Amino acid sequence: MQFDVTILGSNGAVAAHNRYPSSQIVNYNGRHFMVDCGEGSQFRMNTFGVKWSKLDHIFISHLHGDHYYGLIGLLTTFNLHWRETELNIYCPPPLEEIIKLNFKHSKTELRYQIKFRHTRAEGTETIYEDELLSIHTFPLLHRLPTTGFLFKEKQHHRKIIPSKIEEYQIPYELIKKIKRGEDFVLPTGHIISNAELTTAPSPPRSYAYCSDTSFSIETVNYVSGVNLLYHEATFMEEHAVRAAETYHTTSVQAAQVAEQAKAGQLLLGHFSARYDNLEPLAKESQSIFPNSHLAVEGKTFQVV
Amino acid sequence: MQFDVTILGSNGAVAAHNRYPSSQIVNYNGRHFMVDCGEGSQFRMNTFGVKWSKLDHIFISHLHGDHYYGLIGLLTTFNLHWRETELNIYCPPPLEEIIKLNFKHSKTELRYQIKFRHTRAEGTETIYEDELLSIHTFPLLHRLPTTGFLFKEKQHHRKIIPSKIEEYQIPYELIKKIKRGEDFVLPTGHIISNAELTTAPSPPRSYAYCSDTSFSIETVNYVSGVNLLYHEATFMEEHAVRAAETYHTTSVQAAQVAEQAKAGQLLLGHFSARYDNLEPLAKESQSIFPNSHLAVEGKTFQVV
Repeated sequence: MQFDVTILGSNGAVAAHNRYPSSQIVNYNGRHFMVDCGEGSQFRMNTFGVKWSKLDHIFISHLHGDHYYGLIGLLTTFNLHWRETELNIYCPPPLEEIIKLNFKHSKTELRYQIKFRHTRAEGTETIYEDELLSIHTFPLLHRLPTTGFLFKEKQHHRKIIPSKIEEYQIPYELIKKIKRGEDFVLPTGHIISNAELTTAPSPPRSYAYCSDTSFSIETVNYVSGVNLLYHEATFMEEHAVRAAETYHTTSVQAAQVAEQAKAGQLLLGHFSARYDNLEPLAKESQSIFPNSHLAVEGKTFQVV
Repeated sequence: MQFDVTILGSNGAVAAHNRYPSSQIVNYNGRHFMVDCGEGSQFRMNTFGVKWSKLDHIFISHLHGDHYYGLIGLLTTFNLHWRETELNIYCPPPLEEIIKLNFKHSKTELRYQIKFRHTRAEGTETIYEDELLSIHTFPLLHRLPTTGFLFKEKQHHRKIIPSKIEEYQIPYELIKKIKRGEDFVLPTGHIISNAELTTAPSPPRSYAYCSDTSFSIETVNYVSGVNLLYHEATFMEEHAVRAAETYHTTSVQAAQVAEQAKAGQLLLGHFSARYDNLEPLAKESQSIFPNSHLAVEGKTFQVV
């Protein structure tokens, strides 16, 4: 099952060095989920060949402009592209008012419905669920109410061993039940145990998005054991004071969160415009958490 | 005196083919005036090396998103760049409400003042004036209240002939008066006529911006005799019906406006996303008005 993250923008508040503000596409099994939508995200989708038609869910972490200024343009372009499919936006409540005010004054009548689902920056909430995946918010520590997002794959069914179907002449209609753990009873009454018929499924994978936030040990609990962790790393450790003042994180702190959460892999993002070369941030993080990588725009990272 | 126009974006509503939505910088004598501010305009300023510090006046023609969605991001970036100089925004009244709502919810306290000057899409109005230049609105024919903008250089003073200053020993304090047309009286009482002392100044130049608009013969009156005319040409003539339906113009119609207005030069812009290659639009326009050019992004056009 495809589960990956494509970075559209990974810069901080001021766009610089050809890096764009925050936005990314989580692709789960061909379904696209956008997380944050800074200015120009629609251009980045074009540049990186992300399909518009697969995107029905957009998640906005908070209302600093570098995380949502591209949304109104994207919604307008959807309309001009004759979109008719419902779109779901998960966001802090005031964003609905902002979007509606823009459309009121441009006399825009959308061809598609937008369903706003308001997020809360206290506690955790399940905001999306289908048969394969659930998505949850958790609070981050920033100057505005801000949520992180946790994408959790559901436990897959057991895998049936193809040769066993033939061996025991298992009828098609029983396969689903066996995948769910049932044994198979032969016409003779003899029981073939599930363990003989199936193998264990791969463990469910998860991805967490944490931006923007101060360094917070609370975060570790929310993202514990994720396979892939995107964590902001606005500053190098030498600017730890500036990071604290602005409710941002250093690359060392991001690595500490990843290490303590026992994450599989760390993606660093939301870089300050002061850094043209980002390699030192990666190196600093790798010194604590070796499997750290820069969220390079246009790159796709597997959740494994 | 420098008087030119740099194109930041010249595409229509849907960004495509690496072309950005409407925005341009009119540079008069080192002062930058931005006309329209589609999404990504701040990135285009970076790409084309347009100086942020010279920009104190922004003009928004109307409230379709491709003409203003980049403004909120630009204002935010100004703030993050520690701007303190007052900024003037000339726009339809609701834009003030939209901007203020965004800043309210992001708890943004700007370090600089914004002075909103509301435009009206009826009649003409002088909205800016300094010692060298005046800027005027005029109505366009679109689905929303829309104004064009006319930049008019003021008549320069006559030029004094340097050798005459020495010949007649003209005192420094009289030069200003002579430039304004006064004669010079010699100590003997003999009058030296202004015509002998000065040459005529260059005729004042003008630039007009017309986007978005239906083809309208009224426009001809407002832009009569301009040196440079930017006129939208969203469609080829074969799509004249679509142009009329959507209150846009074809390249042939844009050429007709330029021809009838006796403009010096025509810049075509606001291209539909359906055209990858724009040369046919230029050719169509040139068949009626030979001095027609495509508003290529990043290019600077002189007002001469």
